Amino acid sequence: MLGVCYYPEHWPRERWSEDARRMRELGLAYVRVGEFAWALLEPEPGRLDWAWLDEAVAVLAQAGLKVVLGTPTATPPKWLVDRYPEILPVDREGRRRRFGGRRHYCFSSPVYHEETRRIVTLLGERYGKHPAVAGFQTDNEYGCHGTVRCYCERCQDAFRKWLEERYGSIDVLNEAWGTVFWSQRYRTFQEVELPNLTVAEANPSHLLDYYRFASEQVRRYNRLQVEILRAHAPGKFVTHNFMGFFTDLNPFPLGEDLDFASWDSYPLGFTDLMPLPEEEKLRYARTGHPDVAAFHHDLYRAVGRGRFWVMEQQPGPVNWAPHNPNPAPGMVRLWTWEALAHGAEVVSYFRWRQVPFAQEQMHAGLHRPDYAPDAAFFEVQRVVEELGALSLPPPGQAPVALVYDPEAPWVYEVQPHGAEWNYLALVFLFYSVARRLGLDVDIVPPGAALQGYRLVLVPSLPIVREKALNAFREADGIVLFGPRSGSKNENFHIPQGLPPGPLQALLPLKVVRVESLPPGLREEVEGPWGRFSSGLWREWVETDLSPLLRFADGLGALFRAGRYLYLAAWPSPELLGALLVGLAQEGGLSPKPLPSGLRLRWRGHLVFAFNYGPEEVVLPVPSGVRFRLGGPRLSPYEVAVWEEG
Amino acid sequence: MLGVCYYPEHWPRERWSEDARRMRELGLAYVRVGEFAWALLEPEPGRLDWAWLDEAVAVLAQAGLKVVLGTPTATPPKWLVDRYPEILPVDREGRRRRFGGRRHYCFSSPVYHEETRRIVTLLGERYGKHPAVAGFQTDNEYGCHGTVRCYCERCQDAFRKWLEERYGSIDVLNEAWGTVFWSQRYRTFQEVELPNLTVAEANPSHLLDYYRFASEQVRRYNRLQVEILRAHAPGKFVTHNFMGFFTDLNPFPLGEDLDFASWDSYPLGFTDLMPLPEEEKLRYARTGHPDVAAFHHDLYRAVGRGRFWVMEQQPGPVNWAPHNPNPAPGMVRLWTWEALAHGAEVVSYFRWRQVPFAQEQMHAGLHRPDYAPDAAFFEVQRVVEELGALSLPPPGQAPVALVYDPEAPWVYEVQPHGAEWNYLALVFLFYSVARRLGLDVDIVPPGAALQGYRLVLVPSLPIVREKALNAFREADGIVLFGPRSGSKNENFHIPQGLPPGPLQALLPLKVVRVESLPPGLREEVEGPWGRFSSGLWREWVETDLSPLLRFADGLGALFRAGRYLYLAAWPSPELLGALLVGLAQEGGLSPKPLPSGLRLRWRGHLVFAFNYGPEEVVLPVPSGVRFRLGGPRLSPYEVAVWEEG
Amino acid sequence: MLGVCYYPEHWPRERWSEDARRMRELGLAYVRVGEFAWALLEPEPGRLDWAWLDEAVAVLAQAGLKVVLGTPTATPPKWLVDRYPEILPVDREGRRRRFGGRRHYCFSSPVYHEETRRIVTLLGERYGKHPAVAGFQTDNEYGCHGTVRCYCERCQDAFRKWLEERYGSIDVLNEAWGTVFWSQRYRTFQEVELPNLTVAEANPSHLLDYYRFASEQVRRYNRLQVEILRAHAPGKFVTHNFMGFFTDLNPFPLGEDLDFASWDSYPLGFTDLMPLPEEEKLRYARTGHPDVAAFHHDLYRAVGRGRFWVMEQQPGPVNWAPHNPNPAPGMVRLWTWEALAHGAEVVSYFRWRQVPFAQEQMHAGLHRPDYAPDAAFFEVQRVVEELGALSLPPPGQAPVALVYDPEAPWVYEVQPHGAEWNYLALVFLFYSVARRLGLDVDIVPPGAALQGYRLVLVPSLPIVREKALNAFREADGIVLFGPRSGSKNENFHIPQGLPPGPLQALLPLKVVRVESLPPGLREEVEGPWGRFSSGLWREWVETDLSPLLRFADGLGALFRAGRYLYLAAWPSPELLGALLVGLAQEGGLSPKPLPSGLRLRWRGHLVFAFNYGPEEVVLPVPSGVRFRLGGPRLSPYEVAVWEEG
Repeated sequence: MLGVCYYPEHWPRERWSEDARRMRELGLAYVRVGEFAWALLEPEPGRLDWAWLDEAVAVLAQAGLKVVLGTPTATPPKWLVDRYPEILPVDREGRRRRFGGRRHYCFSSPVYHEETRRIVTLLGERYGKHPAVAGFQTDNEYGCHGTVRCYCERCQDAFRKWLEERYGSIDVLNEAWGTVFWSQRYRTFQEVELPNLTVAEANPSHLLDYYRFASEQVRRYNRLQVEILRAHAPGKFVTHNFMGFFTDLNPFPLGEDLDFASWDSYPLGFTDLMPLPEEEKLRYARTGHPDVAAFHHDLYRAVGRGRFWVMEQQPGPVNWAPHNPNPAPGMVRLWTWEALAHGAEVVSYFRWRQVPFAQEQMHAGLHRPDYAPDAAFFEVQRVVEELGALSLPPPGQAPVALVYDPEAPWVYEVQPHGAEWNYLALVFLFYSVARRLGLDVDIVPPGAALQGYRLVLVPSLPIVREKALNAFREADGIVLFGPRSGSKNENFHIPQGLPPGPLQALLPLKVVRVESLPPGLREEVEGPWGRFSSGLWREWVETDLSPLLRFADGLGALFRAGRYLYLAAWPSPELLGALLVGLAQEGGLSPKPLPSGLRLRWRGHLVFAFNYGPEEVVLPVPSGVRFRLGGPRLSPYEVAVWEEG
Repeated sequence: MLGVCYYPEHWPRERWSEDARRMRELGLAYVRVGEFAWALLEPEPGRLDWAWLDEAVAVLAQAGLKVVLGTPTATPPKWLVDRYPEILPVDREGRRRRFGGRRHYCFSSPVYHEETRRIVTLLGERYGKHPAVAGFQTDNEYGCHGTVRCYCERCQDAFRKWLEERYGSIDVLNEAWGTVFWSQRYRTFQEVELPNLTVAEANPSHLLDYYRFASEQVRRYNRLQVEILRAHAPGKFVTHNFMGFFTDLNPFPLGEDLDFASWDSYPLGFTDLMPLPEEEKLRYARTGHPDVAAFHHDLYRAVGRGRFWVMEQQPGPVNWAPHNPNPAPGMVRLWTWEALAHGAEVVSYFRWRQVPFAQEQMHAGLHRPDYAPDAAFFEVQRVVEELGALSLPPPGQAPVALVYDPEAPWVYEVQPHGAEWNYLALVFLFYSVARRLGLDVDIVPPGAALQGYRLVLVPSLPIVREKALNAFREADGIVLFGPRSGSKNENFHIPQGLPPGPLQALLPLKVVRVESLPPGLREEVEGPWGRFSSGLWREWVETDLSPLLRFADGLGALFRAGRYLYLAAWPSPELLGALLVGLAQEGGLSPKPLPSGLRLRWRGHLVFAFNYGPEEVVLPVPSGVRFRLGGPRLSPYEVAVWEEG
Repeated sequence: MLGVCYYPEHWPRERWSEDARRMRELGLAYVRVGEFAWALLEPEPGRLDWAWLDEAVAVLAQAGLKVVLGTPTATPPKWLVDRYPEILPVDREGRRRRFGGRRHYCFSSPVYHEETRRIVTLLGERYGKHPAVAGFQTDNEYGCHGTVRCYCERCQDAFRKWLEERYGSIDVLNEAWGTVFWSQRYRTFQEVELPNLTVAEANPSHLLDYYRFASEQVRRYNRLQVEILRAHAPGKFVTHNFMGFFTDLNPFPLGEDLDFASWDSYPLGFTDLMPLPEEEKLRYARTGHPDVAAFHHDLYRAVGRGRFWVMEQQPGPVNWAPHNPNPAPGMVRLWTWEALAHGAEVVSYFRWRQVPFAQEQMHAGLHRPDYAPDAAFFEVQRVVEELGALSLPPPGQAPVALVYDPEAPWVYEVQPHGAEWNYLALVFLFYSVARRLGLDVDIVPPGAALQGYRLVLVPSLPIVREKALNAFREADGIVLFGPRSGSKNENFHIPQGLPPGPLQALLPLKVVRVESLPPGLREEVEGPWGRFSSGLWREWVETDLSPLLRFADGLGALFRAGRYLYLAAWPSPELLGALLVGLAQEGGLSPKPLPSGLRLRWRGHLVFAFNYGPEEVVLPVPSGVRFRLGGPRLSPYEVAVWEEG
């Protein structure tokens, strides 16, 4: 199903019913409204103005549309900030930030919790049982603009309490953090400060705990909203719209409090910001990298425990990337189908109409600011028609699982050891190489059950907890661990017995040394699949296992014990590709290298094909297959769907 | 006429008369003194010491020199700053800056206005009627070191008042800024803050108004000085020395309060800092880019309503650029002639002698610190001789006008949309391409009368006001508009009816979409003049007009209605060159592509030629032409002058 | 002799005697302990806990090891910082920094001086006469993490007093700083502030004096510690461990207060951070640049007036560089021998065992965190064996002296004039070119006696004081001065009579102009040794001397008067190499260009050869020479020693 984001407050009232009529006519089902509207709903402290929103919801309802109502807490009004300046966040540099953008609040502020409780309760009371309101979105894009981590006094207080709960006694904290080092010993929890503005780098355990704390504060804040909404809106869903390539926040625990996850999909903006080779950046500047949306669909499907929406879908050039190209013709349709192929329940476009003023005036919509339909409008029309002719089976389990660890980016942010080490880049490499072999991937958090997967990819899992270890034990497919897996314990220590720590139960080996390399320094690795180049990271392994791949000096780069493998280097795409072909075949899969711009995705018996490249491709289908959309020759930016025989 | 900047306070008194004698002997007419001398004039609060300046002026007068007296307000003394710390500016990061450099004051500070009134009145009283004092320079290089925009409490107060005057009621401001977006609604003017340190980007209308306000505060401050000087120095001129490539300040309104404009010309420093291709940077490292001084001569001639001086002319290596090469031999003479050819009334060298101490000790002068004449001295000697043999006719109107919009850099700084979009770069491209065709250019502000111009270039004019529109209507030449013209209204909204907004009265078209592209992404455009490459920016136009140039996808890149043209892309120099050749010819001009280092300039019947390149060039003159300087073969760094037949 | 850094407090007590036994067994003589241990020694204000350290020292003593005891002042405990927050430093941005790393104190803090006196006295009283304690290390790596220069109120107070002592009267300061410029005149010392956060650049004399002051504050602070230790520990040595490539601190005066200097040698980390051409960086990524350790050995031998230790020797990958490669096999041994060849009395490895927690957990040691010996352990074993078979003669004077000016980096930091001008890079170029000719180099401070040297290299000496001038006068070898020598006087003025100022007594020439060039702008220089390229910096010289090298325009680039030469450009390595070959031969030396990775070093009659390159090299030795280690063919990363015939 399709939806749209709509801001009635930005448009004349006399326009609303016409807009609603046209949404319905276009075939949209859902309309998200209301997030960011606090100053409209409460123009003066305590004076509520519901009239306009009542009317807007009524108008939409009348047209047969369902409303997703956002809580307006991402934008506290000026009067609120003036009354309680303490809600403004303090950044890493120690500067209190000001009103004038959005997300200008600290997640730990008790006053802001109170104010949130007040406004969300009011909203829940008024609309929680409204028949046209399908559900709620809490706040908007938690953490955007670097707001997960605040360095104010309230955060310091809350962090001290959090530490006290976690460690019980300061001696335990001292042991856990290794404060014997550099005389960092604390006598009380009151002595612990936030880890910014230190002269030398802060203690890594301190930093990691602070990142954990900050992420949990967001969850706690969100749960406050969820509980109020559940109380006042029985039977309505509650979701939140997460962001792409954003790691300050662990989305999984937050996802547990929601009915499903949503995310905001801007393939071109993300591609402009990704650390891709220049030529790939240019190749995909107008389409987005072929795996960038897919990766997040698979990630947030996991966060939503199987259910997700695209709450905001890019409909044209955006306003916020360094470069904002126009999508290639057909891409809005392609992105929509890609989302649906990955199991999206709803794809909702951001926004109904480009707004001609304020910060986002250069962000395209389904309509131009002069009310005429824009290019995306017609692509959505086409999707609606096509959707009508196709019933989508429920998505099944993919053959490949990729374990995504939300703590890993924090661990490696604290101690990258090599300037180019980047967890997301490594994960994206594993994901993309698998996708280029035509393999569907489920992304799962550490500890998730791994039964039924033929192949489990663990690009890097620095902290291996009991639950994750058990899941690996109980997996029935091949499990490939990447470098630095098991390299830290819960407290950010190198494990006793050395890495991979608890994974030694599966892989009898020890990582006795590691190194990070400058970009130009490459080494060869060689094995049964050929000769490849590696760089950026290497490990020295002590083991009785005989290596499957060797570095030029003869030492091992890949080890195997039973169905578990350990890769002691950051692989090149070629090396990883050859390795995954072998492992997938061993797992009974049929990996087939696809043309660089082509991707496939199964949803039940339907196979979807997407051509992100500027060249026509011939699909790898047996003749006689039944096409439900398109055909065996796929033009650039085109979609095909067929039934698996 | 020629002049020089001189700091008697830096040199022993016994040296002054010798210096004066030699200035006179060299043929200089004007000597600028006194700016930066506050602490010398008022060593203790209220204790004035005029003796040294009286004597210095007397000594210069005695030698027959005329004095330009600078007000010393760019450098408030330490005791003043200690007495009123509030005059120190606060930067964008919220840090109050300190004494120890220069320009350490806030333009909005009421106390500093009072102190300025006091010291300028004293100066005016003492020297306003002095026969040797020809005129005054207010302050020095307003805005240097990023000082136009201050973020202190006084500025916040003043900005609130400014907004109240501009909008009358807060509702009007809310509407103008679109504060319905992101709950930014204000209830009173007192709620509005300065737009720094916001968590997300600030509202663009807010930012633009703040930039306007900050620029106006400078004008207001300058006017305070001008009024005092006019009162005490009847008949004397008042000027200010503006800077190159500086856009925080709108110079046009300020110019209206002056008798003429001045500017400080440092071609090598500017060239080192300009965003030029690497090979051009190296080619012109010792000469300056051939259009960099010319551009500013033409700009500040407009600011001075036809009259301008070069108040500071680079005489050798400067001290402040990342790289400070020695000018190629002859360049100081060439730069002087270029200024005169563009109508400079006086070219004044900075400085008489290199000072061997303090911040600018590595800045060359006409003399070395050991009192010996430096290389530039001899080049000035030659200019003086040559000037004696040549009487310069008054400069006339150029055939081409270029509309330079001082607000445009602010608009694009607030919302560049593409990382490489840079207003000055686009303007400089239009200017340079015209100059390389041998066309003289008048730079004019939006709204200036355009009669008499064969060709009007408008590289980009985002906000088109009534007066500018009328000027375009009344222009009798061809008018070429560049991209993003008419893309915003006065309040930084996309115009109703879409861009180019009011220009639709001239050009029946709508820009319905725009995009910014990463550097490597190029598109071809094709038309009657050939096939070219474009990039960085593209627009989609809806119109019944048939395009003169088309993008590779067939859509139009250049449109024409009568004598108005609209270019929907950022052009390559080749594309723009071909286009200007065609338009200039149609306008009855004879554009001729010049060798890359050669430039021409008409002053009345005299034609000047300047060779900035390292190769000899043959001048495009008919045989038999009467040369007043040089001849038809122009060596590197040489100047020629002939009479137009 | 060899040693190791050891932190008993990081390990279980039951491990200590085993560790001590193995140290002894390995052949180590010295163990450094105790720096960073304040919070362990004084867990609560005034409650001292000596027991653990008493025991640790006893255990080490019992094993026959000698202890180097560090004072723990680099890491004041949290309770101390909370009690006196004023000890925390304020950075250049005006931000007070926080507890949580190390070096979180201001060198000017009176309270911290008091606390330092207290803890060092206690330490001296307890261990000053302990028979196993060989000596003391004061603090740790003064200045690390940018801590030499603090911008707090106490520093401002102390700086004002320092200025008053230096100048006596404010008029003298005003004259010395040239405060007549930009109205910077001060009426009292109380008016002078620290030179940060100024609006334009601060006065260069002000900056230089502040850098001098800040460096002297460190010396003063260190002397406080030294005096206490001398009082309580008669006969024991006192040293401090300096850093590599660190110029904020002038090490020479501080060295005068010590018995000998020490330094911390991390060749791979330094090489990753050095501004080297990309291909050299990669070539030496696993070995360190061949001159990087040698340069510092020679520098700190001078600081220690002939005596130095390597207090911390890199034993494997470090944790703090952008990239942290594993040393090539054999490099720990090679680095040790290189240090010994340069006269190191002790080479002490950092650290005995890699610690599995806190900030430095990724820093390798002689042992892995699991207590097993790491690769370096076995290389040390080999060195111990080899050392047993070789008795090292005392190091003699080298044939070449290089004058290293610790003030020069400050002068050029204040006014680089060219973005790429870097004093250390120029010094390293001179040093490296000499070393590649097989020449041993003594590094000496300006003013040191130069008798006995055949060749004296002065890469750049901006301020030439009487003592240095006399030393040049009394030198009996050839003296080569590089660019900008003599370019400033004591007060950061251009000297009267122009550069090279006082050197004009030796070289009758004047530098009348200088320029800095962008990287791509190269000029040719030509002379009897060939034709070379130069760039980055050029000078114009006025003299009657006839140049030995000329720029393409015919002007001189190299001048000579008797045994003094002046180079008026930044030379390419090729130019400098050719020049040094000629000068060395003239001085009676036999320079021979070595293969790029090979270096030689004489210690008495022993010649050491080190192969840093990945290719085997054949040593330039006469046949029949007596090898004490290795032989005439030197494998990669190998060492050879032979007796000079």
